[in-house]
Amino acid sequence: MTRNQLVTAIRSKGSYLCVGLDPDPEKLPRHLRDQFGGTVADLDRANLADLDRATLADLVFEFNRQIIDATQEHCVAYKINTAFYEALGAKGWEAMERTVNYIPATHFRIADAKRGDIGNTSSQYARAFFEVMPFDAITVAPYMGWDSVRPFLEYKDKWTIVLGLTSNPGAADFEGQRMERMERKEIHLYEQVLATAAAWGTPDNLMFVIGATQADSFERVRRLTPDHFYLVPGIGAQGGSLEEISKKAMNKDVGLLVNASRAVIYASDGEDFAGAAGKAAAAYRSEMRAFLE
Amino acid sequence: MTRNQLVTAIRSKGSYLCVGLDPDPEKLPRHLRDQFGGTVADLDRANLADLDRATLADLVFEFNRQIIDATQEHCVAYKINTAFYEALGAKGWEAMERTVNYIPATHFRIADAKRGDIGNTSSQYARAFFEVMPFDAITVAPYMGWDSVRPFLEYKDKWTIVLGLTSNPGAADFEGQRMERMERKEIHLYEQVLATAAAWGTPDNLMFVIGATQADSFERVRRLTPDHFYLVPGIGAQGGSLEEISKKAMNKDVGLLVNASRAVIYASDGEDFAGAAGKAAAAYRSEMRAFLE
Repeated sequence: MTRNQLVTAIRSKGSYLCVGLDPDPEKLPRHLRDQFGGTVADLDRANLADLDRATLADLVFEFNRQIIDATQEHCVAYKINTAFYEALGAKGWEAMERTVNYIPATHFRIADAKRGDIGNTSSQYARAFFEVMPFDAITVAPYMGWDSVRPFLEYKDKWTIVLGLTSNPGAADFEGQRMERMERKEIHLYEQVLATAAAWGTPDNLMFVIGATQADSFERVRRLTPDHFYLVPGIGAQGGSLEEISKKAMNKDVGLLVNASRAVIYASDGEDFAGAAGKAAAAYRSEMRAFLE
Repeated sequence: MTRNQLVTAIRSKGSYLCVGLDPDPEKLPRHLRDQFGGTVADLDRANLADLDRATLADLVFEFNRQIIDATQEHCVAYKINTAFYEALGAKGWEAMERTVNYIPATHFRIADAKRGDIGNTSSQYARAFFEVMPFDAITVAPYMGWDSVRPFLEYKDKWTIVLGLTSNPGAADFEGQRMERMERKEIHLYEQVLATAAAWGTPDNLMFVIGATQADSFERVRRLTPDHFYLVPGIGAQGGSLEEISKKAMNKDVGLLVNASRAVIYASDGEDFAGAAGKAAAAYRSEMRAFLE
C-alpha cells in the first residue's frame, strides 16, 4: 500500500484506527470455545493451553474472522502480533497466514513481529512477511543498525516500522537514556534512532513505533520526524490517551495509526463479542473523526 | 540445561562449537533436491523459491538431519535461525519444530530469534520457544528494556541470550555510540546494555551475543561481565577470528559458545555435504581443544 492510498483511506473513513489481533486462547469467548468440540467445552481456562493446538488454531482464526467482519468498517489497519500465533506452534503460524489472507486488501496489514538481524537473515524475514504472506508492513527493532533494517526497505510499496519510543516501562532502560551531548544538545537514544533511521528510508516507506504512554515526548519526536507516520500502541489497557497523541502528534497527512488490541477484541467475552468489538472500534472512530476536523 | 551441564559438556568434549542451522533452500545440495521429486530436480536455483513449500520444508529437515548426524560429535550446541524457517511459511515452522526435536538433548539448543516485546507478548514468545518447542535458550533484543526480557528469565534451566555487541557493520549505528559520560568514564550503548541486563538475571540463566568481528572490544566486554557466557557469531563467512575471541574472552568456565553456520553447513554442496560439514566441525573442535589447554 502506498502512502497516498493509506492517507486516502484514513480521510475517507474518518479513522486512523488499527485493530490489534492478539488472540490469547485463554481470553476467547466461552461459547466459541464450546463450538470447537467437546474437549474445549469441558475444560476450564487453566487447562486450555494443553488442548490440541490444531483446534486452538482453528478457534483463533474463527475469532479473528468474526472480529475482522465486525470492525473493518471502522478501522484502516490491522496489526497481527506474531507472538500469539507462534505460541500455538506450526498450526498457529498457519492461523496467522489464514488471518492475514482474510483481511481485506483495502486495509493496511501490519506484522507486529519486532524482527531484526544481520543482512542475510533479515532478508529471510522480509521474504516471510512480504512475499509468503501479504503484509504491508512489519515492525523492526533498530538495535543492530542499518544493515539489519535495509532488506525490509528494498520492497516496493511495503513499509518498515522501526521501534522508536515504546509504550512499556522498560523503555526507560535504554531508549530513554542520554547519549553523549552533541553541539550542546541533549539527545536520548530514541532520538538518535529516529534521526538515524529516518535517513535509511523515506516517509513513504518507513514509520516509527511511538507509544501513547510517552506523551511528554511527543513534541520532541515530531520535531525530529515531522513527516513520518507513527504506529501508536498503548491506548486502552496500557493507559495512553488517544486525545493527547492526536492533539500533539498529528501532522498534515494525519501521520498516525493508533492501535487498540485488548480494548477492542476483548470488549466482551460473551456471545456478543464481535458486536462489542465493532462498537468499541466505532467509538474510537467517532473520537478520531472529531480530532480529524 | 544448567550451566554445570553445559560446562561439563564443553570440557569433556573439548569443544565450545555451536553449529548454526540456517538452511537456505537455494544453497542446498543438488542431489538432495533431486531426491525430493521431479519438480525440485527440474528447476534451477532461481526458481527454487517458487516450489511447493511443503516439499522445501521436508528438504530442509532432511538436510538438517544429516548435518546434525555428522556434526554432533564435534559440537556442544546447535543454533536454529528462525528466519530461514519462517521464509517457508507454516511448513517451515513445522520443519523448525522437527529439527529442534531431532537435536539430541545432550546438546544446547538455541533459538536465534532476536525476539523482544512488551511483557504480555514476550510471555507468548517464551511459551513458543520454551514450552511448545524444547529450546534451551533464545536470543533477545534489548532495545525495549527489562520488562521485554523478564518473561524469558522466569523459566527454570532455560537461558536468555541478550544482544550485546553484534558482528554486523550496523553495530556502529547505536550499539557503538557513546552515552553520556558517567563519573568521567566513557561508556558505549552496548556497555550499558551489558551492565544493565546482567542485573536482570545471573550468569546461570543469561548470556550475551558478542560478535567475533569485534575483537577490539573483547577486553572491555569481559571486564564488565567476567562470569557470563557469550554466544559468538561471526567467525567464518563474516571474518571474525576464533583464535582472537578464544585468547581474549575465555574465562574460568570457558564462557564461550562460538557459532559457525555457513562455514560448516555449506562446506560442500556435493553428495559429501554431510561428511564435509563433519570435517569442518572437527577442524574447529581441534583448534578449540588447543585453546582449552
